[in-house]
Amino acid sequence: MQLYNAPAPNPRRVRIFLAEKGIDVPRVEVDIQGGETRSPQFLAKNKLAGTPIMELDDGEILTESVAICRYLESLYPTPCLMGRSGLEAARVEMWNRRMEIEILGTYANVAQHSFDFFADKIEQVPAFAESQRRASAKKWAWLDSELADGRPFVGGADFSIADITGMAALMVGDFAGIEIPKELNHVLAWSERMRERSSWDA
Amino acid sequence: MQLYNAPAPNPRRVRIFLAEKGIDVPRVEVDIQGGETRSPQFLAKNKLAGTPIMELDDGEILTESVAICRYLESLYPTPCLMGRSGLEAARVEMWNRRMEIEILGTYANVAQHSFDFFADKIEQVPAFAESQRRASAKKWAWLDSELADGRPFVGGADFSIADITGMAALMVGDFAGIEIPKELNHVLAWSERMRERSSWDA
Repeated sequence: MQLYNAPAPNPRRVRIFLAEKGIDVPRVEVDIQGGETRSPQFLAKNKLAGTPIMELDDGEILTESVAICRYLESLYPTPCLMGRSGLEAARVEMWNRRMEIEILGTYANVAQHSFDFFADKIEQVPAFAESQRRASAKKWAWLDSELADGRPFVGGADFSIADITGMAALMVGDFAGIEIPKELNHVLAWSERMRERSSWDA
Repeated sequence: MQLYNAPAPNPRRVRIFLAEKGIDVPRVEVDIQGGETRSPQFLAKNKLAGTPIMELDDGEILTESVAICRYLESLYPTPCLMGRSGLEAARVEMWNRRMEIEILGTYANVAQHSFDFFADKIEQVPAFAESQRRASAKKWAWLDSELADGRPFVGGADFSIADITGMAALMVGDFAGIEIPKELNHVLAWSERMRERSSWDA
């Protein structure tokens, strides 16, 4: 299989996931700034024009970063990043979705409705970007209240894909200049732990 | 276990999932119009104040509809709604996420930024609701292009949670008065098939 990769948050989630597993797969670099995802060749693989894509050896296409990670988890179960039992998998799913919807999704809204890159791709609403920038402080405050019990990772004692989703959000925040409120000590300590992982630079 | 239920799209996803499995669990009806999700008792279960919640017999709380479904899938694997093998589960995950992000998410944005119910819960941006209402036609057109190969369900030959996510979107569309463009025959035929399922009224 090979990964269609790009310098963007969702491909980065897959790259961190691979790095945490200690595995690597061949990569094809996609020139998203140059518009390569709008080419007929790319649209034939993904009509939604998004990265990442994992192309399997028989030509089958998987898109959506968490779907790609779920397949990788089945091939390389150690270290476990998405839960072992049904209940564990449900817990990780809950935390990953909370991080996506509350944190990464909020930052993605800021980016999509304010970055020049998206100007010819969606109908941007600058007022929505500003409202989401303001909302992000409340979202981080929610996470801080959850982490106040002293757990090291978003979902509990173990690092999981939910932390990886948070790492992708931290990267978008760095790029967009959105800061975590200074009083949120639990979130800031978690952020530091994430930035110290070797997979941060994947 | 017991399900904290409400007349809203995400609890409905779990109710349809249960109906398709042919199982039932005790329900606690939550008065979301009356503000019950903001009560200290409810917030102690879910700080994010959302439904559905599945409370397990030992008191553990699961939130996020797909996380609850993943747990139910592990307990009641037949009929399969989330894929059996790792690759099947990844395919279903891909289609469910596409339906969430492209279809249900777009409709949810219209609802959250225009319905009175959300006026005291988020900072509404009416221009964003209108832009998302316009965008929904393009999203359905994308799905139509995918269904043009004649497959009966969103993810292929088998009904899955991806169709359930689409059913939740159809219900929001009905409520918000958003119509599927009349030329999208493949989507309209799929919509009719979904509305004919006995689980539609779950």
